Amino acid sequence: MPMPLNPAMAATAVSPVPESARWIAGRQFPDDRPLINVSQAAPVATPPLPLREAMARAVMEEAGAHLYGPDLGLPDLREALAGQIAGIYGSAVAPAQVAITSGCNQAFAAAIATLAGPGDEVLLPVPWYFNHKMWLDMSSVRAAPLPSGDDLVPDPDAAAARITSRTRAIVLVTPNNPTGVAYPPETIAAFRDLARAHGLALVIDETYRDFHPDPGAPHGLFSDPDWEDTVIHLYSFSKAYRLTGHRVGALVSSPARLSEVEKFIDSVTICPSQVGQRAALWGIRHLGDWLAGERREILDRRAAIVEGFGGLADRGWRLRGCGAYFAYVEHPFAMPSDALAPELVDRAGVLCLPGTMFEPASEAPGGATGSRHLRIAYANIDRAGIGALYERLSQVGFPA
Amino acid sequence: MPMPLNPAMAATAVSPVPESARWIAGRQFPDDRPLINVSQAAPVATPPLPLREAMARAVMEEAGAHLYGPDLGLPDLREALAGQIAGIYGSAVAPAQVAITSGCNQAFAAAIATLAGPGDEVLLPVPWYFNHKMWLDMSSVRAAPLPSGDDLVPDPDAAAARITSRTRAIVLVTPNNPTGVAYPPETIAAFRDLARAHGLALVIDETYRDFHPDPGAPHGLFSDPDWEDTVIHLYSFSKAYRLTGHRVGALVSSPARLSEVEKFIDSVTICPSQVGQRAALWGIRHLGDWLAGERREILDRRAAIVEGFGGLADRGWRLRGCGAYFAYVEHPFAMPSDALAPELVDRAGVLCLPGTMFEPASEAPGGATGSRHLRIAYANIDRAGIGALYERLSQVGFPA
Repeated sequence: MPMPLNPAMAATAVSPVPESARWIAGRQFPDDRPLINVSQAAPVATPPLPLREAMARAVMEEAGAHLYGPDLGLPDLREALAGQIAGIYGSAVAPAQVAITSGCNQAFAAAIATLAGPGDEVLLPVPWYFNHKMWLDMSSVRAAPLPSGDDLVPDPDAAAARITSRTRAIVLVTPNNPTGVAYPPETIAAFRDLARAHGLALVIDETYRDFHPDPGAPHGLFSDPDWEDTVIHLYSFSKAYRLTGHRVGALVSSPARLSEVEKFIDSVTICPSQVGQRAALWGIRHLGDWLAGERREILDRRAAIVEGFGGLADRGWRLRGCGAYFAYVEHPFAMPSDALAPELVDRAGVLCLPGTMFEPASEAPGGATGSRHLRIAYANIDRAGIGALYERLSQVGFPA
Repeated sequence: MPMPLNPAMAATAVSPVPESARWIAGRQFPDDRPLINVSQAAPVATPPLPLREAMARAVMEEAGAHLYGPDLGLPDLREALAGQIAGIYGSAVAPAQVAITSGCNQAFAAAIATLAGPGDEVLLPVPWYFNHKMWLDMSSVRAAPLPSGDDLVPDPDAAAARITSRTRAIVLVTPNNPTGVAYPPETIAAFRDLARAHGLALVIDETYRDFHPDPGAPHGLFSDPDWEDTVIHLYSFSKAYRLTGHRVGALVSSPARLSEVEKFIDSVTICPSQVGQRAALWGIRHLGDWLAGERREILDRRAAIVEGFGGLADRGWRLRGCGAYFAYVEHPFAMPSDALAPELVDRAGVLCLPGTMFEPASEAPGGATGSRHLRIAYANIDRAGIGALYERLSQVGFPA
């Protein structure tokens, strides 16, 4: 008899990014009309030269760049990130409250593993980040969908009504993947209050923090002296310093919580990449101005997404949300998005992800419906590329 | 109210390596009597210079060294490992049957996540590799202990008697961590037959394959044309090429199984380190002779462990198992090993791990008892170091 398959894994969706990569595998696109790939939130350029040089020096000169390091990360990097957080949020965080992970997905997986077991529930605003949903599904933890309003911001009162005796956490992603929307600080505070009142965790994934549209602190959570009783903050170094291939993220919570996180990291990856951690540390120390420039460029692309949308709006498209790396758009076609997205490769030379990868199969009451949406990860295309994208999409026609 | 704690995580043991690191944290040891650290199976030297140079070139010249790559690993590395396996085991394995993971612990975690859910059982020979036990515990999968014989080899008949309707897999680690014992090919085949007869997976972790004491194929599993229906083979590049800090391992099974593994990798780490994968690929292509020399050196240290043991045997110590990176020894003291091991830091300047970290708290019938055992990871100390280790241990005295 062949070996068994865990039903929870079988019921977990196929990974969207590899799935969409298969839509273009082996395909050729004309030189004068190359594929516009807006499927993944990932820098396509290397880190700046001085950072690459610093990494090469570490590889050649530091034995520690090749050996196991502490499970919870390099002490210098934990301290540097704590300092950076203090600067951004205006409130001190201790290095002992910071763990370094093998990317932000691992930070989420570890956080959930310490919070919830089989049969427990986690409130996940719709649309969600697909890897969050997948991790909950394969962990036999129920992802309880929390509909968002027309502004794509989840509502604490709606969340309160969905809390059960099995609820263990509320998850927020801000700026959001897939919608790009940055949640208002007062909404974030209200979710914190709700979580605290019910003894839940507020897991807040701020992977796109560095591209927040507003200046100043994105929220005031860390100014609460008891924040670590309720809040687990997640971060990624991947976007800030173009380190996606090195897998470095972070999880910020209480030292007691990090002792539980340590068990997960030890059992799954032992420690984060030593070269990647050195790169992240060098980035924090030397690339502040460079990153500020990166943010300005992303904000300019965001402006281009908004300014140029009129042509699509005339054809029945709707811009639902926009910011950080993403635009979340409603298409005008009768075809559901999971059929449309592969068609757009052929008809428009555009690769993007369907809303069905971010929303429940059944329509959530009051929420968005995935079959009508597409996610456009626009961060990798400049103003000219955004113009070309819009031109191609506006030329696509299907029977209404 | 503070946030909750998953009871399965709370019940998972503290990670042994970070735990033992705390026994020596902040401690000073005299220059003329430095600490002998035999706690972790980890090279302490860098990869050879040409490999470091190859990594530095990749960092400087290859954009792909910094970007996301395929979830299941670089195609070139998958192909190279498939070829290497064919050479070692004498049977072809297809690149599509090979996945690259962020270290071998992730390969195990992913394998189990595809096989077993909450309430299921996995047969784990005693003594076990602690991270295997930890992952099962935090996953709410029951680790069913399988006692080993006096030779520390588990018995397929004993396993057969412990299979229940909830059993999903049998796990073998060969050469074994913590005992060092390499299981005979016929025992491995018998476990495969048992797993197949009951529709279970045989998960075989061969992290220490490159330091196997016997020449030739360690087993004949891959010569079975239907092997992929039953076998999941795990491997690590960490020991072979001194890449512990880069987190590169592998999982070999059917393409259908790898589609499930892909979901796990996507949700936890997205892809393995790109620099680490390039290093592993360079190692396979260029370091075959070098690795053969490493193996000879490890086998010489093994010989020194065996040859020099007489002095300890005279004091009531017993060498239970020895090979690859490890010796598993029985100590002569009334004190349990989890109290003894921290004491040995003070009394002998030796850091090793107690058998309690590898065995159930209650005595398994017919099996070894953790309180009487210590694991010595001798791979990092040469013949002189082994002599010093034995001298120090032989001088330790406690009331019997």
